[in-house]
Amino acid sequence: MAAPLDTTGTPLALRVPNAAATPAANDPLALPPGTTSEKFAEFISHAEQTTGAENVTIIKKKEELTKELYTDPSKAHDMYHLFDKDYFVVSATVAPRNVEEVQAIVRLCNEYEIPLWPFSIGRNIGYGGAAPRVPGSIGLNMGKNMNKVLEVNSEGAYALLEPGVTFFSLYDYLKEKKLDDQLWIDTPDLGGGSVVGNTIERGVGYTPYGDHFMMHCGLEVVLPTGELIRTGMGALPDPTQPTVEGGSLDQQPGNKCWQACILFPYGFGPYNDGIFSQSNLGIVTKMGIWLMPNPGGYQPYLITFPKDADLPKIVDVIRPLRLQMVIQNVPSIRHILLDAGVMGTKRSYYDVDRPLNEEELDAIAKKLNLGRWNFYGALYGPKPVRDVLWQVVKDAFGTIEGAKFFLPEDIKEKCVLHIRAKTLRGIPTIDEISWVDWLPNGAHLFFSPISKISGEDASKQYALTQRMTLEAGFDFIGTFTIGMREMHHIVCLVFDREDEDQKRRVHKLIRELIQVCADNGWGEYRTHIALMDQIAETYGWNDNAQMKLNEKIKNALDPKGILAPGKNGVWPASYDRSAWRLDANSERTRP
Amino acid sequence: MAAPLDTTGTPLALRVPNAAATPAANDPLALPPGTTSEKFAEFISHAEQTTGAENVTIIKKKEELTKELYTDPSKAHDMYHLFDKDYFVVSATVAPRNVEEVQAIVRLCNEYEIPLWPFSIGRNIGYGGAAPRVPGSIGLNMGKNMNKVLEVNSEGAYALLEPGVTFFSLYDYLKEKKLDDQLWIDTPDLGGGSVVGNTIERGVGYTPYGDHFMMHCGLEVVLPTGELIRTGMGALPDPTQPTVEGGSLDQQPGNKCWQACILFPYGFGPYNDGIFSQSNLGIVTKMGIWLMPNPGGYQPYLITFPKDADLPKIVDVIRPLRLQMVIQNVPSIRHILLDAGVMGTKRSYYDVDRPLNEEELDAIAKKLNLGRWNFYGALYGPKPVRDVLWQVVKDAFGTIEGAKFFLPEDIKEKCVLHIRAKTLRGIPTIDEISWVDWLPNGAHLFFSPISKISGEDASKQYALTQRMTLEAGFDFIGTFTIGMREMHHIVCLVFDREDEDQKRRVHKLIRELIQVCADNGWGEYRTHIALMDQIAETYGWNDNAQMKLNEKIKNALDPKGILAPGKNGVWPASYDRSAWRLDANSERTRP
Repeated sequence: MAAPLDTTGTPLALRVPNAAATPAANDPLALPPGTTSEKFAEFISHAEQTTGAENVTIIKKKEELTKELYTDPSKAHDMYHLFDKDYFVVSATVAPRNVEEVQAIVRLCNEYEIPLWPFSIGRNIGYGGAAPRVPGSIGLNMGKNMNKVLEVNSEGAYALLEPGVTFFSLYDYLKEKKLDDQLWIDTPDLGGGSVVGNTIERGVGYTPYGDHFMMHCGLEVVLPTGELIRTGMGALPDPTQPTVEGGSLDQQPGNKCWQACILFPYGFGPYNDGIFSQSNLGIVTKMGIWLMPNPGGYQPYLITFPKDADLPKIVDVIRPLRLQMVIQNVPSIRHILLDAGVMGTKRSYYDVDRPLNEEELDAIAKKLNLGRWNFYGALYGPKPVRDVLWQVVKDAFGTIEGAKFFLPEDIKEKCVLHIRAKTLRGIPTIDEISWVDWLPNGAHLFFSPISKISGEDASKQYALTQRMTLEAGFDFIGTFTIGMREMHHIVCLVFDREDEDQKRRVHKLIRELIQVCADNGWGEYRTHIALMDQIAETYGWNDNAQMKLNEKIKNALDPKGILAPGKNGVWPASYDRSAWRLDANSERTRP
Repeated sequence: MAAPLDTTGTPLALRVPNAAATPAANDPLALPPGTTSEKFAEFISHAEQTTGAENVTIIKKKEELTKELYTDPSKAHDMYHLFDKDYFVVSATVAPRNVEEVQAIVRLCNEYEIPLWPFSIGRNIGYGGAAPRVPGSIGLNMGKNMNKVLEVNSEGAYALLEPGVTFFSLYDYLKEKKLDDQLWIDTPDLGGGSVVGNTIERGVGYTPYGDHFMMHCGLEVVLPTGELIRTGMGALPDPTQPTVEGGSLDQQPGNKCWQACILFPYGFGPYNDGIFSQSNLGIVTKMGIWLMPNPGGYQPYLITFPKDADLPKIVDVIRPLRLQMVIQNVPSIRHILLDAGVMGTKRSYYDVDRPLNEEELDAIAKKLNLGRWNFYGALYGPKPVRDVLWQVVKDAFGTIEGAKFFLPEDIKEKCVLHIRAKTLRGIPTIDEISWVDWLPNGAHLFFSPISKISGEDASKQYALTQRMTLEAGFDFIGTFTIGMREMHHIVCLVFDREDEDQKRRVHKLIRELIQVCADNGWGEYRTHIALMDQIAETYGWNDNAQMKLNEKIKNALDPKGILAPGKNGVWPASYDRSAWRLDANSERTRP
């Protein structure tokens, strides 16, 4: 591959992974690719001048990468590391204090041709956390200092957020302002992540506002060469305030228009927001998101189904109800072991080193008073409306033999329904993280294929993924979350991150799952950093036409290829894609 | 401005408008810019070989441009021409018969550096119809031959369409298949346009599925250099069929995956669909769209309000109802003269050459048994649900003095409610076109600013636009359509297209409206080809950062600048933007 040129015609260094080398005294654990110790030190010195030394953290030793860093992403790595924990590791993190500093760091990375991997809070767990695709990247810690709720507007029912705002902190803000009854947020299973981060990764929650990306409205974005844009109506200058030279919102706190414009997503001309989701084309510095006005109350419920074979019937009952908006939100059908995992470790049920068998699953379900499948939903609206809907839901699911219906007050002891009751109301929790401890030193990978809402597809996808998971020696743990016309099937692959054999097996397993599902026409909606290339390749219709489009746009907006190279399989021209490829046989330790 | 280079380093001809010249014998009315008679003839000969001569139409004389061409866009011009009718005119139209021919024509345009302006049916009326921004462009008539409903899936409630499918033809298709009761479409006021065209221009309708772009799912697009992509899950190859070399869907009619994938919009990696809306980055050849399952019935209604000053009260009543989904759809608040225009010409009320005054408006309202403002809405769901909602709606609007409530059966004579009752059910009509005949030789321009749903904003925007319209000597005719959190205020500027003075005045008026609204923080969502640059400039935050981004992407995807140059203000590097600029003083006749 010939060295690509930048826009001025100067050849760019073609980046390949660093070879093993004896590190210099002040080197980080991993240097950015193609960057000398001296250049790196120079870069860090400039970065420290930009953001203050207290906002720059160099990772020097593997020992610094502890699990406790879950709460401190400044030493960004993958806490649930499929590879060695120091494989996908940053050289350093930099935490800008405002938009200008984000722009300055981006420009610095262009100057030094050093890759930059932005994260908000780093809780992209199961998909790589805060860790970069390219080892040695600079981690841009957007959440540490830029963590303000800039506005909540109750008349228009929206919020304007910085990347560091978590589902918890947004909810707490509403509570503090006594707006939490009037305006509901939507949260994923765990509330510790960034609202901005989750939304631009196209994560989902469980209320009627569960499609976060659909409910966002307006982005402010730093482009890979440092320019600042606002999308949609945000591109209209505020008539009450002259544009400031350099044009940061931070200098225009009262920009009326930007705020009012969080009411209409599209603006005029090409609608660009989508290209900043799951992408490496910009760094989102602010985002508007719609909040759900209190619909007049809600009623969470649980329906348990006794048999493993009930799955297709459940799904076929759901489809028309969901399409008709009798089921108004994003409900979930959970496998017994997901609930079991929330309630205890595997060992607390059975002390065995093999996947649990059918009888054991039945026994666990019986013990927990749950079904083999458990459907968590909610009804939204004033009580008379909910009562009508509840009758329809009960009648429909009542056709499945053995279905049992529960409201939260029906169950006295601690249970998953009590947690889901919060989630379905948009109240963030962290309780469900406990299923990751199913195994000792528990870590997890998410495998997330999309399918249509069809019993046949669901049972075929379940049978396939379950069989392969069991054959690989792991328990099947999973959940189907139901969108308007499709399901996200989330298979939760739990493994012991201190057990090399398990890690090797789970890696092999997920690569086979990706291939087998692609062969059946099912693609994934999101994935772990180690698997991005393989999944991107499954979207290869017409000689990878979509990827070629993505690369053209990438190279136009990021000629030096500094922003998150390799993210979701999109490599800039300045990287040798083939040299970065990973597969099931890849060496998973640092060179 | 230096001549830009194409990707191979070859200088591109910098396009400026053609100077006046004596046409050669076989020349079209308008040659493409910078194209000689010989080159044009050569191009046409290749085009005829590609699509068959019967699908190529050259426009030779002004006399061919009659209003009847409304039903035949092969002689593409602006039927409601603000400029001379032969100003925004194509040199020729070409109607491809399949995707391969679209690709071939695109490649031919690249070879000859001739601009190409795609349209579906050409009914973008009030915004330029089928007419191109750059006179002499080749009009790509997508709708003539590519007009099939490829699939309607009742289980998933979606349709897969070619560009030539109109709202009428989609509805007729459903009727023919006896699916029209089960699956509802959403239609704009007039049903003659293309579903694909309206959706990618981000048009709206009036049912709960009124935001067409939000309800689309999956695009097939020919890029400006001829490659074919599918977005979202469409990029997954069909596992049951090997990819055909060249990869057209036409060769893979049974592509299971593409069809099933119309259930999930996003796919994996950057979500690119938005950049193909209101843009010149691709030609949509197929689109998936979600259909609304019959919600259990509906009930259209009309509420009339007696006073002009009632507007802010109406809007403030609507906002919470809409946010809470008590109002579940996109309703509209119509000015008396819009309804009056549907029922008769201006002369049928008053034979005067000046705008009607307050007393005359009151008299018309009285005569038609309407209010000064008339709110057309509908309730969706089973009757018990509708009854509850109707009570809430009546109580809320009942607080406005003089409000009267009507159901369609309450009115015996022909009326607008009878038309809207269809529209609110997604049944296409063409009846409302009659308001364009308010004046003799009636034509219209739409001025469409967005505002938040606030009485204060609505009355301020109405007062301003009404005063300026009256001062320019025209009647104010308008409607507010209410989205989730914003209103599209559609001001319908009706003028006599044979009256040069009126055309001069209406052109001056709309340019002043754009400026004044921008000064107040209101931007337009869509506009006429003559006004695209001015409106794009109002979205100029931070030194036109958004436009610079759009241009970067444009130049990367369309290095020769052949696809719809100037569309929504986005000019490729091969065009001298300033030479194409239009303003209120521009010569509106052909050179």
